[in-house]
Amino acid sequence: MTRKELVEHIYTKKTFLCVGLDSDIEKLPPHLKNLADPQFEFNKQIIDATLDHCVAYKINTAFYESRGAKGWETLEKTVNYIPKTHFTIADAKRGDIGNTSAQYAKAFFETLNFDAITVAPYMGEDSVRPFLEYKGKWTILLGLTSNPGAKDFELILSKNSYLFEEVLKKAAEWGNSDNLMFVIGATKHEMVRAIRDTYPDHFFLVPGVGAQGGSLSEITLSGINRDCGLLVNASRAIIFASEDEDFAAAARLSSQQYHEEMSSFLSKNA
Amino acid sequence: MTRKELVEHIYTKKTFLCVGLDSDIEKLPPHLKNLADPQFEFNKQIIDATLDHCVAYKINTAFYESRGAKGWETLEKTVNYIPKTHFTIADAKRGDIGNTSAQYAKAFFETLNFDAITVAPYMGEDSVRPFLEYKGKWTILLGLTSNPGAKDFELILSKNSYLFEEVLKKAAEWGNSDNLMFVIGATKHEMVRAIRDTYPDHFFLVPGVGAQGGSLSEITLSGINRDCGLLVNASRAIIFASEDEDFAAAARLSSQQYHEEMSSFLSKNA
Repeated sequence: MTRKELVEHIYTKKTFLCVGLDSDIEKLPPHLKNLADPQFEFNKQIIDATLDHCVAYKINTAFYESRGAKGWETLEKTVNYIPKTHFTIADAKRGDIGNTSAQYAKAFFETLNFDAITVAPYMGEDSVRPFLEYKGKWTILLGLTSNPGAKDFELILSKNSYLFEEVLKKAAEWGNSDNLMFVIGATKHEMVRAIRDTYPDHFFLVPGVGAQGGSLSEITLSGINRDCGLLVNASRAIIFASEDEDFAAAARLSSQQYHEEMSSFLSKNA
Repeated sequence: MTRKELVEHIYTKKTFLCVGLDSDIEKLPPHLKNLADPQFEFNKQIIDATLDHCVAYKINTAFYESRGAKGWETLEKTVNYIPKTHFTIADAKRGDIGNTSAQYAKAFFETLNFDAITVAPYMGEDSVRPFLEYKGKWTILLGLTSNPGAKDFELILSKNSYLFEEVLKKAAEWGNSDNLMFVIGATKHEMVRAIRDTYPDHFFLVPGVGAQGGSLSEITLSGINRDCGLLVNASRAIIFASEDEDFAAAARLSSQQYHEEMSSFLSKNA
């Protein structure tokens, strides 16, 4: 999906919600557990229920790999089930030497046909480039993440800049705002305004709203740009809004609430 | 596998070779291509041929994921085929917020029962801890990698120390030399002596010998400790020593040459 198409979806539907399919097999509603593929059945119902309220789905590969090859089958079925109207993100945080990253890019952009993948920057340029080489695909690089460990390395200060700032700076030379996004955690909203000032055009994928404690309004006020420029993800707060038979209805309601709040921001931004 | 067992294997067999199963489907010998699972057949023959000359196998997940769920089946079959006498490494470079890293740890330590997994440090402590919590399993953290991109972030200098040095320092507080190794690239041998001085006990997993240009003798002289403390990996130089019908014999010969050179170092070190 191109940037133009993504922005059109956002303004037509008036939402920049990304629903995170962190579909932990241990937390699935009990009534699904006797089905042939409970994780896929769960995802299917979540997708059907939330489709109207989001523009993107983010599949967290860990929750499928934990089941081995069978989990990867569920992952494949899930990404194929998401309609082409929605932006698909493999939240995989891959990154390795050049010839290996090329294999990961093939895995997620060709074999699974995701629109985007999250990539870890530690190993530098040749670990990121193979993802950027795909036309019409997106690399979403870890910048300032939402978790407590972000302080350990991302916030190491060197010559007046944090490591994550060096990461964004170099990466912005390798890619551009049509093929590169940054992960910027919602729990760090106080730093987001400065990041937005430096990168006025790039999209930010924002995790950390909901279960991790970030505020949608704070991150939106700090991070929105003229094209919206934000995909705000919520996972547990939506998919496990209820852990019972009414999980899909509860997910719909939760996603609708995000949608309504986002609509009001986008109306003001139009 | 415990550290004691690993060290025993190294000194009994007189080798610290790790064979990297970067089994690129595009490079498999033509005569295998009509089999039901050419990648597994290739791995099986490589493992049979090299078993006597190495103590470890490293499976690079990217080369299996590029085939989707079917590739993960091959990955499962491959790790199950490796005998328990050999240390198994998932070269997966995973790392995410705590609850997600816990799922990756489950994937590789429980579902697939690897001895070790490579982990990317960028997201900090809560992204690494879940791997360290498994008894009898190993976390192999990226330190100073062998690729050109290592200069982009790992070698950023802050207060007289490189980023990778901060990574090793903090990680050495989270784990210990019985459950934590570091990835230290062979192409950086001139820095290895200082790293060894600071971390006299930790094992280093050393990629970059062979196709990437690192020297076995240089890295060994700089990095060996009283328990050997090194697992030196070669992938392409062994598994693609020949890309024809004699690939297994060529792999055996190549691994034997590493074995002989390693034996002489270990004899001097005894």
